[in-house]
Amino acid sequence: MSYDRAITVFSPDGHLLQVEYSMEAVRRGSTVVGVQGKDCVILAVEKRAIAKLQDARTIRKIVSVDDRTVLAFAGLTADARVLVNKVRVEAQSYRLTMEDAPSVDYLARYLAKIQQKYTQQGGVRPFGIATLVAGVNDDDKGKRPFLYQTDPAGTHSRWKAQAIGGRNAKSLREFLEKQYQDLNEDELTETKCVRLAVQALLEVVDSGAKTMEICVIREGGIKEMLKEEAVQVVVDEIEAEQQEEKRGPSGSD
Amino acid sequence: MSYDRAITVFSPDGHLLQVEYSMEAVRRGSTVVGVQGKDCVILAVEKRAIAKLQDARTIRKIVSVDDRTVLAFAGLTADARVLVNKVRVEAQSYRLTMEDAPSVDYLARYLAKIQQKYTQQGGVRPFGIATLVAGVNDDDKGKRPFLYQTDPAGTHSRWKAQAIGGRNAKSLREFLEKQYQDLNEDELTETKCVRLAVQALLEVVDSGAKTMEICVIREGGIKEMLKEEAVQVVVDEIEAEQQEEKRGPSGSD
Amino acid sequence: MSYDRAITVFSPDGHLLQVEYSMEAVRRGSTVVGVQGKDCVILAVEKRAIAKLQDARTIRKIVSVDDRTVLAFAGLTADARVLVNKVRVEAQSYRLTMEDAPSVDYLARYLAKIQQKYTQQGGVRPFGIATLVAGVNDDDKGKRPFLYQTDPAGTHSRWKAQAIGGRNAKSLREFLEKQYQDLNEDELTETKCVRLAVQALLEVVDSGAKTMEICVIREGGIKEMLKEEAVQVVVDEIEAEQQEEKRGPSGSD
Amino acid sequence: MSYDRAITVFSPDGHLLQVEYSMEAVRRGSTVVGVQGKDCVILAVEKRAIAKLQDARTIRKIVSVDDRTVLAFAGLTADARVLVNKVRVEAQSYRLTMEDAPSVDYLARYLAKIQQKYTQQGGVRPFGIATLVAGVNDDDKGKRPFLYQTDPAGTHSRWKAQAIGGRNAKSLREFLEKQYQDLNEDELTETKCVRLAVQALLEVVDSGAKTMEICVIREGGIKEMLKEEAVQVVVDEIEAEQQEEKRGPSGSD
Amino acid sequence: MSYDRAITVFSPDGHLLQVEYSMEAVRRGSTVVGVQGKDCVILAVEKRAIAKLQDARTIRKIVSVDDRTVLAFAGLTADARVLVNKVRVEAQSYRLTMEDAPSVDYLARYLAKIQQKYTQQGGVRPFGIATLVAGVNDDDKGKRPFLYQTDPAGTHSRWKAQAIGGRNAKSLREFLEKQYQDLNEDELTETKCVRLAVQALLEVVDSGAKTMEICVIREGGIKEMLKEEAVQVVVDEIEAEQQEEKRGPSGSD
Amino acid sequence: MSYDRAITVFSPDGHLLQVEYSMEAVRRGSTVVGVQGKDCVILAVEKRAIAKLQDARTIRKIVSVDDRTVLAFAGLTADARVLVNKVRVEAQSYRLTMEDAPSVDYLARYLAKIQQKYTQQGGVRPFGIATLVAGVNDDDKGKRPFLYQTDPAGTHSRWKAQAIGGRNAKSLREFLEKQYQDLNEDELTETKCVRLAVQALLEVVDSGAKTMEICVIREGGIKEMLKEEAVQVVVDEIEAEQQEEKRGPSGSD
Amino acid sequence: MSYDRAITVFSPDGHLLQVEYSMEAVRRGSTVVGVQGKDCVILAVEKRAIAKLQDARTIRKIVSVDDRTVLAFAGLTADARVLVNKVRVEAQSYRLTMEDAPSVDYLARYLAKIQQKYTQQGGVRPFGIATLVAGVNDDDKGKRPFLYQTDPAGTHSRWKAQAIGGRNAKSLREFLEKQYQDLNEDELTETKCVRLAVQALLEVVDSGAKTMEICVIREGGIKEMLKEEAVQVVVDEIEAEQQEEKRGPSGSD
Repeated sequence: MSYDRAITVFSPDGHLLQVEYSMEAVRRGSTVVGVQGKDCVILAVEKRAIAKLQDARTIRKIVSVDDRTVLAFAGLTADARVLVNKVRVEAQSYRLTMEDAPSVDYLARYLAKIQQKYTQQGGVRPFGIATLVAGVNDDDKGKRPFLYQTDPAGTHSRWKAQAIGGRNAKSLREFLEKQYQDLNEDELTETKCVRLAVQALLEVVDSGAKTMEICVIREGGIKEMLKEEAVQVVVDEIEAEQQEEKRGPSGSD
Repeated sequence: MSYDRAITVFSPDGHLLQVEYSMEAVRRGSTVVGVQGKDCVILAVEKRAIAKLQDARTIRKIVSVDDRTVLAFAGLTADARVLVNKVRVEAQSYRLTMEDAPSVDYLARYLAKIQQKYTQQGGVRPFGIATLVAGVNDDDKGKRPFLYQTDPAGTHSRWKAQAIGGRNAKSLREFLEKQYQDLNEDELTETKCVRLAVQALLEVVDSGAKTMEICVIREGGIKEMLKEEAVQVVVDEIEAEQQEEKRGPSGSD
Repeated sequence: MSYDRAITVFSPDGHLLQVEYSMEAVRRGSTVVGVQGKDCVILAVEKRAIAKLQDARTIRKIVSVDDRTVLAFAGLTADARVLVNKVRVEAQSYRLTMEDAPSVDYLARYLAKIQQKYTQQGGVRPFGIATLVAGVNDDDKGKRPFLYQTDPAGTHSRWKAQAIGGRNAKSLREFLEKQYQDLNEDELTETKCVRLAVQALLEVVDSGAKTMEICVIREGGIKEMLKEEAVQVVVDEIEAEQQEEKRGPSGSD
Repeated sequence: MSYDRAITVFSPDGHLLQVEYSMEAVRRGSTVVGVQGKDCVILAVEKRAIAKLQDARTIRKIVSVDDRTVLAFAGLTADARVLVNKVRVEAQSYRLTMEDAPSVDYLARYLAKIQQKYTQQGGVRPFGIATLVAGVNDDDKGKRPFLYQTDPAGTHSRWKAQAIGGRNAKSLREFLEKQYQDLNEDELTETKCVRLAVQALLEVVDSGAKTMEICVIREGGIKEMLKEEAVQVVVDEIEAEQQEEKRGPSGSD
Repeated sequence: MSYDRAITVFSPDGHLLQVEYSMEAVRRGSTVVGVQGKDCVILAVEKRAIAKLQDARTIRKIVSVDDRTVLAFAGLTADARVLVNKVRVEAQSYRLTMEDAPSVDYLARYLAKIQQKYTQQGGVRPFGIATLVAGVNDDDKGKRPFLYQTDPAGTHSRWKAQAIGGRNAKSLREFLEKQYQDLNEDELTETKCVRLAVQALLEVVDSGAKTMEICVIREGGIKEMLKEEAVQVVVDEIEAEQQEEKRGPSGSD
Repeated sequence: MSYDRAITVFSPDGHLLQVEYSMEAVRRGSTVVGVQGKDCVILAVEKRAIAKLQDARTIRKIVSVDDRTVLAFAGLTADARVLVNKVRVEAQSYRLTMEDAPSVDYLARYLAKIQQKYTQQGGVRPFGIATLVAGVNDDDKGKRPFLYQTDPAGTHSRWKAQAIGGRNAKSLREFLEKQYQDLNEDELTETKCVRLAVQALLEVVDSGAKTMEICVIREGGIKEMLKEEAVQVVVDEIEAEQQEEKRGPSGSD
Repeated sequence: MSYDRAITVFSPDGHLLQVEYSMEAVRRGSTVVGVQGKDCVILAVEKRAIAKLQDARTIRKIVSVDDRTVLAFAGLTADARVLVNKVRVEAQSYRLTMEDAPSVDYLARYLAKIQQKYTQQGGVRPFGIATLVAGVNDDDKGKRPFLYQTDPAGTHSRWKAQAIGGRNAKSLREFLEKQYQDLNEDELTETKCVRLAVQALLEVVDSGAKTMEICVIREGGIKEMLKEEAVQVVVDEIEAEQQEEKRGPSGSD
């Protein structure tokens, strides 16, 4: 009853309640899906609760960390801005010191380290966000991009596909696992990845391309935000198929 | 029951209660309306509870941040003074360092960053204010001004039109959305914008130009506080129309 | 029930209870009245609970801030001394740095800024005082003095006439508003102002010039404490009139 | 119920409870009486609870601050030592910097400032003492000494006569006021002042010169501790008179 | 009831509850087994709860500290990252200062020292991890590696075989003790050690090489992560034997 | 009920409970008696609860502060060590700076100042000891030693004879007062003082010289610890007399 | 009920509960026995709860402080490591500064000082250990070693024989006192001392040399850990005698 008031204290069963509550804040955020392809990573974000008069550009949940690294977050927007600023400064500082761009692995580690720090020291609360980070590792010759995740506890890990944020993150993760089963990673072209990410988001959003933001990170960390029309095409395809499936047993590709 | 006493602590369902309570302080403040036109931004503030003998000039809720940037706030006046001072110092410092004026986007970000900081560190409480900021972004060739919002949580975003403060901010937002539906942004002249802003405020204030303060920010960040008489003219027009509408079905422009 | 223990914390309805309690300390202080004339400001203070053997000079509630600025306070005397010292040091420092005297506007802002600071940071309590400040603004060619108010929350504002401190501050404010209605500011000579201030204080004090302290701030910030006899003359006049009024319907000036 | 635990916090009705409790510590101390004469100040202290084997010199409640300034305190002895040390250091530092002795007004202000500081900042408690300070102000040509008081709240004021400490301080104050009524200040010779101070103390102490300590501060701040015999003479006189008064109606001087 | 809220406080029976709660966090982690052979150390970790799409490489629980030192941990992953970073920095700093590699004994001591520090000072919580560390001590001529353990309390010790983390660590320890009874340390070849570690893990994991990670540290601190196939061979052998044992009484080697 | 938890806080009736509780720790300590003679001071300490195998020398309650100053304490031994170290450092520092030995008055003041400091600042508790200090004041021509006392509140005072520590300190003080009545201070030779101190201690200790430690401080601050045999002689004398007194009415010296 | 939560606070009856609770942690530790001989000191420690696979060398409770000083502790092992490190650094620093080895008295004092510091300052808890320290004092010509004790409160003292830690420390102390009665210190050869220490430990341990660790500190501070076989010989002798005693009345040496 009182273990949750102090910040850096264990409960008798070994939990850090403040960290778990901050994960609840992530769960209350919008859904973010990441999919790793053979030569790309897709980050797809639910544009939940966008006010009609709000300029979507300033509330983006997909932001650049560096030339070659992109971050999508779920949770408290204000916390995210601060954490993103910290990692951006680190990225620039790394470039200056090392005369090289930081790898996505380095930046994901850095994000996790900062997040952990806010769970162990007094006088601060944990960051109320989880992130998916996509970018290039220097030791990858092909400059193929990879997908990482960090959470409020300060852990980081690499994923083939992952969903964070939202009440249905867990079932989305199962959806992704199920989809991946039947897939050969080498066949995972950009088109298939986008389709998979959109398909996942459609499980939680009401409808259409307007409620999604899709970013493609290609070889060498080159990124592109998909236009709404392009996303709509994918959405239409999927919905058409789902209609067909309902009508009768037909095969998907 | 006790989650709201500590400053930087999450509740079990992932809320930062102190931040939410500070938003309540914003709701207890007066209403501020911002409207984006094709080449201007209008900031309109309710002059609530102005004592008869008080000099209106010293309690203005619309203040300059920089040559080309104007800020209107809702919430605790004393907190606003402090936050405004901080952003003014930053604006000047930016000018000295960069030999250029800061963009409204930069200043809104800065405001939000400061506000977030006061939600995560111990020993301080969040700022009890939300702001609407209007100004010019340097990358806009036309020097067209834009409208931003920041809140106690430390988020910032751009809006076509927005209302903050007051118990009816939500319904005002809906009113603005409804009005905007029928409008083409390129047709949104200054006159139309002022009219829209006044119309919105008239939903919450009792009557007349005396209870309003209207600021027009034009291309290049040039600002003008409208005279009471000019506002009264608009008020009279709107009220006349509303009278007409009541009498019988007649068309608005 | 517990929101009032922590210093810098919001209550669920957006109040800063410590600030409101400190305003209660102001209300428990003696009454201070300020009146703005066409070329003067009057500060009038209730000398409540003066012990017979106490030297009135050392417990003055009207004190100099600078050559041209006078401050009257309501609330905790010890807190006032500290705040007055801070603003005096600032005034001197301003003179040294700027080679000019600070305006009353600048000093009122400074007072409010210090007072706000003590409401947002941990480890301190708010100042338990409100102030009325009278002085000259440099940009006023006529060197006409003006009247400002600051409160424990850290707000500051300019007034034509204002009353702070005491249980009846609110009704006094209404009294002043009523009196001002019938007055033309340009006709507000020093004599009329003094009379108005004394009249206001007589609403709350038991009797006579001994329970009042009156300070006149003239053009250029020149100040004069009125002698008890001079005040008594005004008191007598007012009481005579009031007697007359009671006896039958007669006109006031 | 809980407002009194935190140090620098207001109660809902605007009280600083810790300050009021520290005044209770003063009330639990011994009585101190100060009397201002036409060319002297008398400080008289009750020597309560003096152990038979204790050396009275080391527990004096009347101490020198400077060449020309004397301080008597009521309340916690250990706190007094610390506060006296602080003001002594200030007095010496003043002499070094200003090449002049500090006035009693300056030193009383300094004492009050230190005492206030301990009521507003966290991590410390208020000083549990009140003081009467007697000394010379430089601007007094006649070098006539004056009497000041400071209390745990950090207020300071000048008095013609004052009593602090002890359960009966309030009634003593009334006694002094009553006595002063019939007196012309210019007639208040040293003899009369001493008599008045002793008379006051006799209201609270059981008997005799042994339970009193009397200090006379003369023009220029020259001080003298009265010998026990000298005090006994005054005591005997007063008691003789009181006997007479009881026997029949006879006039006092 | 309240002893567990404060961080660095003893309970009446001499327990440090926060430390014991952090050990609960270790118990909630996955199982780690360490086995000391005649010229090697085996670290074996349960890969519990590995998501299907997660890249196992980034969530490794066996990490390098230095060229010749390997660490496996049980407990909070984020805490482990931070502690591992600290010991890595220390190892590098040691190399620079001493121009020699730190011994495993030195590094285990360092880990324990950091962990203890977080149990005695205010404002931080203990680290929620226990570690097994394997590496070379410089004073060992044969450069034979050794096995150390550290826990959240900050103790460190050397072991022939040890199990940490998981609900069954205690019974695993008993299993290891039983197995060691019949063994001559000089006969403990790498093959036998790996077999013993796998056997131990099979007591707690459901099945197969996929749920295990095995690291061999050889003479001179040379380390090798066993391939999944190699582990599977061992698993198959053990399971075959167990089948045989069930069928009838047959001898194991 | 809760006033005793916070360190530097007053209770509603003006008590500093932590200070009073620390005095309870003094009362739980062993008894210390100090007696001032015409040319000497005697410090006598009860050697309570001395374990049979403990080396009495390391648990002495009478320790040197300086060449000419001796301190005896009652209360927490560990606290005493720390306080004694502080005063020893001060004594040495004084010698270096002033090129003279500090007087006992100076050192007693210093002890009291340190003890007071620990009652007013946050984050520390009061020292749980009282002290008797004996030594020479430089302004005493005869170099006669004097007796001072300090307590946890931070007061200090000079005594002819005093008892601290133990449950019976108060009755011992009365015993000393009674004995002193019949004595002429000029007749108080070293022999008589030692006898008086031993007599006092015999009121609280069970028996014999083994339970006492006696230190004589002579002119110039020269000190001597009495041998157990010498003390036994005094004890035997006193007990013989007491036997005699019981048998019949006989006169003591 | 609440006095035990705060660290540096007295209870109403003058106890420092945190210190007493930390002594409970010592009582929960293993037993340590120290015996002073005519030219040696024996430190004997119970090896309680040694896991079968644990390397006894890394969990030793007898450690070197300096060339000539040995420390044995009872209580929290992690705390002991930290305290031992502190005293080791001090010993080295002493050597460098003084160009001489520190005496055991100096080091025991230093240990006690550190331990006391952790009982008076906020933000830390007391050390949960008691120590027995054996070593040489430089002023001893014979370079004979001595035995000291320190405890969590920060007291230190010298002993002829002492037992700390374990539930039966008190009865062991009585056993030692009883044994010492019949002994002449000059006859206490190393053999006799070892025998006495082993005899004492056998009162609390189940059996045999495996559950004991014995260290002999000889003249000049030369130390030797006894081999298990040597200890077993002593154990066997004692047990043989005890058997004999049971059988019939026979004399021990």
